[in-house]
Amino acid sequence: MNSRQSAASSKDVETRCRIVATAERLFREIGYNKTTVADIARCLSMSAGNVYRFFTSKSEINEAVGRQLMGEVEQAAEAIANSQGPASERLRKLIHTVERMNSERYLSDTKLHEMVSIALTENWPIVREHVLRMDVYLQKVIRDGIEAGEFRHQDPALAARLVHTSTMRFCHPRLMVECGEFTVPTIDQMLDFCLAALHA
Amino acid sequence: MNSRQSAASSKDVETRCRIVATAERLFREIGYNKTTVADIARCLSMSAGNVYRFFTSKSEINEAVGRQLMGEVEQAAEAIANSQGPASERLRKLIHTVERMNSERYLSDTKLHEMVSIALTENWPIVREHVLRMDVYLQKVIRDGIEAGEFRHQDPALAARLVHTSTMRFCHPRLMVECGEFTVPTIDQMLDFCLAALHA
Repeated sequence: MNSRQSAASSKDVETRCRIVATAERLFREIGYNKTTVADIARCLSMSAGNVYRFFTSKSEINEAVGRQLMGEVEQAAEAIANSQGPASERLRKLIHTVERMNSERYLSDTKLHEMVSIALTENWPIVREHVLRMDVYLQKVIRDGIEAGEFRHQDPALAARLVHTSTMRFCHPRLMVECGEFTVPTIDQMLDFCLAALHA
Repeated sequence: MNSRQSAASSKDVETRCRIVATAERLFREIGYNKTTVADIARCLSMSAGNVYRFFTSKSEINEAVGRQLMGEVEQAAEAIANSQGPASERLRKLIHTVERMNSERYLSDTKLHEMVSIALTENWPIVREHVLRMDVYLQKVIRDGIEAGEFRHQDPALAARLVHTSTMRFCHPRLMVECGEFTVPTIDQMLDFCLAALHA
């Protein structure tokens, strides 16, 4: 690749990022359903045609926004999975972090919640991919816990799915709303329960 | 109450039941949204005005249908909770029964699923009441298990909420659809995990 191609492609990456950032802002401000590709283009002072050079449809832009929002949660989870300390503490911190990040982005922001709600209903592959990536970080922590003798010997992949499924009420944006009235169990009571099962 | 009043009131109860049964059938056949009070009245060869003597709105009829559908699941759970046998076996049977009954009625029947979906989104008080009643049966089984020394000493009310929350993916009609692709954990793997936590 010569320097001119490289410059062009880095400009393309930048434009792509600006489209995604603008789309995310518009989803927050006017909502997912009401935002059009023309709105996104207008905010960036470019033609809709230019936006379509990067994304073939509005739904592709939405996917990119979703990936970015979920990617931030994945990065936080990865950092905790790779940190030092007892596995039980990291597991607790990981689930708490997901709960806090999802509350901040999807619950306090009803417009973004609309996007998530549609994604979950339409069962976007990106939601499934996000769940599977989060499983990997949970697995890492649980494997460490087994190796350190903190948890009993067990299949880390299955254990990760069990913890993830048990704590779904605290990580799944729609359940967080639906189950909001249920103050018991708290997230820590649920984590104590999971840790008891992992130790047993 | 004299015999004439009693006869009238038993006829009223019967009419109420017929309205609910007809509404349920129409929800299954033409869907929740499309069914009107006029449709229900027509099927019963009565006037819409007569239906309104029993239910002040369509939403009240819907509630009665929901209560009946969930009431059947509650009766099955109660029978299991009051049966004999080890608590762990009854707990397993209870969750399996809920999963099977909800699959039969809400998953194989997409029209009824529409009703449930609306109920969950609108967060009908009846859904919350159903969850709390199911908690009571779970509590009964867990309390028996603690008294028999099968489970460690713990608060049965909290333990019931923990088991119920952990197994939500298998009991909550919308999650059963959304999580359908996730074949792990199975319901028995999740129950083993919960039982490990209760025993620990």
